[in-house]
Amino acid sequence: MINYLDNAATSYPKPPSVIRAMERCMEERGGNPGRGSHRLALLASEKLFEARSLLCELFSSDDPEGVAFTMNTTYALNLAILGLINEGDHVIISDMEHNSVLRPVEWLKRYKGIEYSVFSTRGDACESIRSLIRKNTRAVICSHASNITGRLLPVGDIGRVTREHGVLFIVDAAQSGGLCKTDMKKSCIDVLCVPSHKGLLGPQGIGAAIFAGDILPRAVITGGSGALSRDADMPPYLPDRLEAGTLPTPTAAGLCEGIRYVMRRGEASIAAFEAGIIRKISEDFADDKRICSYGDAGGGIWLFNVRGVPSQKVSELLDRKGICTRPGLHCAPLAHKTLGTPEDGAVRVSAGPLTRPWQADHFVRSLREILDGEL
Amino acid sequence: MINYLDNAATSYPKPPSVIRAMERCMEERGGNPGRGSHRLALLASEKLFEARSLLCELFSSDDPEGVAFTMNTTYALNLAILGLINEGDHVIISDMEHNSVLRPVEWLKRYKGIEYSVFSTRGDACESIRSLIRKNTRAVICSHASNITGRLLPVGDIGRVTREHGVLFIVDAAQSGGLCKTDMKKSCIDVLCVPSHKGLLGPQGIGAAIFAGDILPRAVITGGSGALSRDADMPPYLPDRLEAGTLPTPTAAGLCEGIRYVMRRGEASIAAFEAGIIRKISEDFADDKRICSYGDAGGGIWLFNVRGVPSQKVSELLDRKGICTRPGLHCAPLAHKTLGTPEDGAVRVSAGPLTRPWQADHFVRSLREILDGEL
Repeated sequence: MINYLDNAATSYPKPPSVIRAMERCMEERGGNPGRGSHRLALLASEKLFEARSLLCELFSSDDPEGVAFTMNTTYALNLAILGLINEGDHVIISDMEHNSVLRPVEWLKRYKGIEYSVFSTRGDACESIRSLIRKNTRAVICSHASNITGRLLPVGDIGRVTREHGVLFIVDAAQSGGLCKTDMKKSCIDVLCVPSHKGLLGPQGIGAAIFAGDILPRAVITGGSGALSRDADMPPYLPDRLEAGTLPTPTAAGLCEGIRYVMRRGEASIAAFEAGIIRKISEDFADDKRICSYGDAGGGIWLFNVRGVPSQKVSELLDRKGICTRPGLHCAPLAHKTLGTPEDGAVRVSAGPLTRPWQADHFVRSLREILDGEL
Repeated sequence: MINYLDNAATSYPKPPSVIRAMERCMEERGGNPGRGSHRLALLASEKLFEARSLLCELFSSDDPEGVAFTMNTTYALNLAILGLINEGDHVIISDMEHNSVLRPVEWLKRYKGIEYSVFSTRGDACESIRSLIRKNTRAVICSHASNITGRLLPVGDIGRVTREHGVLFIVDAAQSGGLCKTDMKKSCIDVLCVPSHKGLLGPQGIGAAIFAGDILPRAVITGGSGALSRDADMPPYLPDRLEAGTLPTPTAAGLCEGIRYVMRRGEASIAAFEAGIIRKISEDFADDKRICSYGDAGGGIWLFNVRGVPSQKVSELLDRKGICTRPGLHCAPLAHKTLGTPEDGAVRVSAGPLTRPWQADHFVRSLREILDGEL
């Protein structure tokens, strides 16, 4: 028996419609999208366009052609960040960032002489950002929801600040997509990056950078684009400019059905469902002095430690009982530092839309057994 | 009825085992590989390791950890080329390169001040390469098989030249993988890049750069690596250094079964089968003065034009009869220039391992109808 509570790493199980769609796509839309114009190539392109359109609908963006597909959100963030930030620029990131934002920004600091500042999410994020904006500030880059606590940043408010100052706003929606309704237009988001395999319930292997308006990043990865083949550079328009090589049609087909599932059920309803599961778990240990919780735990994630025990060990003992959680730093050392977790991080428990009620009960029972006997 | 003859763009249909493997992976190995160590994360990692090992077996490389996964071959080539070529270096490419090599090299020329030379594949490729090698030559980069004619370059001989001169040898196996047995060790290949979705019969959405020996490229794309999370840079070892963000486990599962299919049937046998299909087609038009063929047509690809008719139009008329071919430049303007095709390229007809004999007959009949009546 598997009790999967690691949905913040990747959602599991997936809706059956997602798997069926991938299968059908492999059987019926087997052409190479954007390469040639025969019927199977067009059917593949259509599926990609369907995925672009659904993403735009979900995130209130106008232009499906502004959606560039990548292997995952990290690639999407890299293409946006490396493609839009210039030598000598200054950017502002939050103190809760994942390495998918921190490392590209560090890379630019090392190799392109950019500078970056870190705004605090403890107090008023907007005030913190305002105090950090300089003349050469090019962008504010931050995650919408933390991958270790699920806590949401006020992107609507931040967007107003960036717009006011003529600064780009790049949002990492890796953890919020499918859980929090996000309106790119209302929140003045210029680029939103999102994976298929987390809250959108699609397969691993596809992510997207959604560009609003007329933003045209430099291409960092170049190659065949299926169009303007004679030019030495990638085409001067999206999405072709950022889509070098063959795109992953079957995973795009799965993503479409994942998005449809989210749309049917609604982000707010899914988030409330996940929060309910996690509340059942975290409340049960609220008064247990052996447990230390971090963050708000108001959402679908509970981050905790057993005092004096490495998170790795607790996670391993849970795994022996069939429970899948993730210990350690979750690729987010900056966020862990901000929260003040120990050197080796903490155990993350995360629910998904298809988590069943018994899983919470089983988790509670199992962790109690571990606390009372095996430690 | 669909007569798919565009296998050089992407192979179709796939072996049913490929599709079943993706489905099973989605159902049974739903964790995030390399993120946490619970059973579902490990099952996902194992599947990726299986794919790495199968690739090493197929291409005679020793180290599965030298296999870095990407979304496609273009990304693999970019990570290798941008990660290994330094400012002021000189590289040598062939006159048959696809934009997946040409554009990254052009990018380095523009932004990093490298220089590149083009060796001729008409005469003795090795002699041409030798005459171009300079003191600062860092690498020879070339495709093993042309994507527009299928013609093979003598990578074994080229490898000896590069080894002799202490120059890196980077091979684009996009068109040869699964069709030509390639021994990275014997051919002194330092990096081989290959897609899943062409000759290896896997799904779109995953490709690999296979690094031999102790080569350690710079990381261009950075982010979460699941290991050494505290470091600002990506881990100093492969494959983690080049694998930022979540990897595509389901497509890796499909790739495994595609490789197994190729191993069972054998590259030589598949290549002979495809050549047989194409021979049936091309020989039928060998004496037809209205047809102009390019390249050798000894393999699984026939490149042709109807004299005086744009390739796009011929391909479109074929599509009306259910036949999928690809006209134009095939993202390889340099190769088309080398072959001397017209401005708008040519029609490419390409067989695959699952092409059926009736497809050749149907193609011949259909093209004759077009030549005799519809043009």
